[in-house]
Amino acid sequence: MAATVTPPRGMRDFLPAEKARREHALGVIRDVYRAHGFDEIETPVMEDSHRLHAGLGGDNEKLAFAVMRRGLTPDDLAAAAASGDALSLADLGLRYDLTVPLARFYATHRAALPPVFRAIQIAPVWRAERPQKGRFRQFVQCDIDIIGEAGPLAELELLTATVATLDALGLGDCVIRINDRRILGRILESWGVPEEFRERALITIDKLDKIGTGGVAAELRELGIVGDSGADGPDVAAELEALTAADWHLHDGVVRLPAWLDLEAYDDLLALREAMPNSAIEFDPTLVRGMGYYTGTIFEIAHPDLGYSLGGGGRYDHMIGRFLGQEVPACGFSIGFERIVDLLAVHDEGRPRSVVLVYDAEVDPATLLALKHELVASGTRVRFERRVKNVRALLDRVTADGFDAWAQVGGETTDASSLAFRELDA
Amino acid sequence: MAATVTPPRGMRDFLPAEKARREHALGVIRDVYRAHGFDEIETPVMEDSHRLHAGLGGDNEKLAFAVMRRGLTPDDLAAAAASGDALSLADLGLRYDLTVPLARFYATHRAALPPVFRAIQIAPVWRAERPQKGRFRQFVQCDIDIIGEAGPLAELELLTATVATLDALGLGDCVIRINDRRILGRILESWGVPEEFRERALITIDKLDKIGTGGVAAELRELGIVGDSGADGPDVAAELEALTAADWHLHDGVVRLPAWLDLEAYDDLLALREAMPNSAIEFDPTLVRGMGYYTGTIFEIAHPDLGYSLGGGGRYDHMIGRFLGQEVPACGFSIGFERIVDLLAVHDEGRPRSVVLVYDAEVDPATLLALKHELVASGTRVRFERRVKNVRALLDRVTADGFDAWAQVGGETTDASSLAFRELDA
Repeated sequence: MAATVTPPRGMRDFLPAEKARREHALGVIRDVYRAHGFDEIETPVMEDSHRLHAGLGGDNEKLAFAVMRRGLTPDDLAAAAASGDALSLADLGLRYDLTVPLARFYATHRAALPPVFRAIQIAPVWRAERPQKGRFRQFVQCDIDIIGEAGPLAELELLTATVATLDALGLGDCVIRINDRRILGRILESWGVPEEFRERALITIDKLDKIGTGGVAAELRELGIVGDSGADGPDVAAELEALTAADWHLHDGVVRLPAWLDLEAYDDLLALREAMPNSAIEFDPTLVRGMGYYTGTIFEIAHPDLGYSLGGGGRYDHMIGRFLGQEVPACGFSIGFERIVDLLAVHDEGRPRSVVLVYDAEVDPATLLALKHELVASGTRVRFERRVKNVRALLDRVTADGFDAWAQVGGETTDASSLAFRELDA
Repeated sequence: MAATVTPPRGMRDFLPAEKARREHALGVIRDVYRAHGFDEIETPVMEDSHRLHAGLGGDNEKLAFAVMRRGLTPDDLAAAAASGDALSLADLGLRYDLTVPLARFYATHRAALPPVFRAIQIAPVWRAERPQKGRFRQFVQCDIDIIGEAGPLAELELLTATVATLDALGLGDCVIRINDRRILGRILESWGVPEEFRERALITIDKLDKIGTGGVAAELRELGIVGDSGADGPDVAAELEALTAADWHLHDGVVRLPAWLDLEAYDDLLALREAMPNSAIEFDPTLVRGMGYYTGTIFEIAHPDLGYSLGGGGRYDHMIGRFLGQEVPACGFSIGFERIVDLLAVHDEGRPRSVVLVYDAEVDPATLLALKHELVASGTRVRFERRVKNVRALLDRVTADGFDAWAQVGGETTDASSLAFRELDA
């Protein structure tokens, strides 16, 4: 029977050691974000269904878990059966990201918030994806967003706080790739891609890492988005090669700029990089980021050893207005917490000393409590373990649990000074 | 339009100040529990629907939010319409407490857990209650549970950790009321209440604070649970008066014990109190606690100034076995976080110094970043505010946000040493 008792499909339990790792990492992220002037907020895990399905969540909307209305009548069920619309039975849904709830939160509370609002959200989201390795149906996102700042200070504050957080987590060798949606727009324009196909074209370009320049060129041709190379169409593969090969990283600005480059956007990106001379920030004109709502700068965290990004974000100036009824500039950066937590070493610093007291059956509980009281008051973490035959196995187990030392408590023990602690070697 | 943008009914957003208060309190609770040898775990917010409706949640089962199956077909909808069973469309539900998930977690992971497992769970739960003042549809519970310990050390460790947590929160004037379900059982037996009506009778006795001894006696008579006083029934009101009036608090044990008292349970309670001589623990033979799964000791946190409890718990030895297929003793204590957080003063200790930099439009963003970098590195929290005409209003706002000082940044500012900070008076 025990084998069949599991958490729901695609969701995870966290045992003590893993939970402690996660909380430690979340604490580091929270502290750095706060030091950089961001403020943490919280919204309910559910939002009204119509807000989750307002077209702001892209493909994630289809993955939302729907929460059934309470008190459904047979008539309600019959109506849904007649229309075939299961979603008509739901009034709420679990959030699939933290951006839609933030837009709703800002519309609700704008009057109580500063003109430039710097938000931290560290919270789980849910997506009913097909479970697979490294992809979960409940996972934590760590977002920072700046609402109300149209200028580059928003991007710079987000980049600075993110770089500082990665440093604090021991991931200082990450690189931030940046681009601007306006640059991508100009590239597509230079290829003669009509306005209405540009979103679709970006989905293909987003696969560059996986299918290469030739693959992107072929898919764009097959979709009829660009004409045949040499005939009526551009040589997409060659242009992408040039885009990815160009040494955009030069700091002195001497770089071969394609004639079609959106110079205003490019200058903005150069200014960002120049304002952060000590950070690894790389311009990548082929960077797309998936979400359709981005309007300007886009970011992505890359790690030299990993083939996937560790987070990203960008400017989304038209989204907050959807619930507010008035446009407000906004820009955000999200750390992919589930990917990052796996990269972290176990952090022991700042952890209180932890001891195990192995007690004999005859010891009075009041004595045990008095010992615990004394040790806890001195800043020590205490766990009781009843003596068992196989003490070696017990000590191995508590060593694995991260305890530092142990002592025996017998009938003669009176106070903590009479305990003989022995260190446990991890 | 803005007025209509709200979080879902009965659920709350937390703005920065309130979120900070909550996180501070949760941090205190977590730290004390951990010092006392408990380990934090986490389970998904959803559980399989059949587990949430296995009869372990009492009345809360009816309040569970149900999550719809994905990919429902017209046939599924038609079948639900035919049967009238809306719940057949749900495969998952949001947890309504942390005890059912803990029982499921223990059954899933028992092999990886110590023989006596001390769990911390600090997490939200959801109940579709009719919204009313002080009652929310999403709220946080802070539970500690000890699984695998049949002896009184479990109760003592839970009581000690809870009392220490209340002290750390500045709520040291709370009193813990204790009782034992066996004592309540004997009282009902002495009144001639048949076994099958005892659960129902306890629901009535649980209202003692609200309806008084006369009200309880009347309701029990009306329900036909006890006979008429003087005729064939006991004088319930008088017996309850005696039970509540008796000075059970005597430490020397000289107390008039009713003939029917379950002496074994009573001795256990006295032993608990004697093992914690410095804590305010009071025996209350009329204490019920709502849940049907309690089997022995029950606890409740009372505050002298409040008419409602701040938490509670008890021993539930037959519950873990429901998913495991094998009985394991268990005992838990839950702090009513939403009620407690409202009682706390704002805690400022340990908060880093927070400053606001008011900058002129002409200041280079790179200069601002350099200032922030320098201040953050010295342990200061930094927020930028663009200069506005009404600086007084700006300073009032950031003072309310908890900032300690401010300085102006102009075109001449070069580094943090050239900033002239002025303190903000809260």
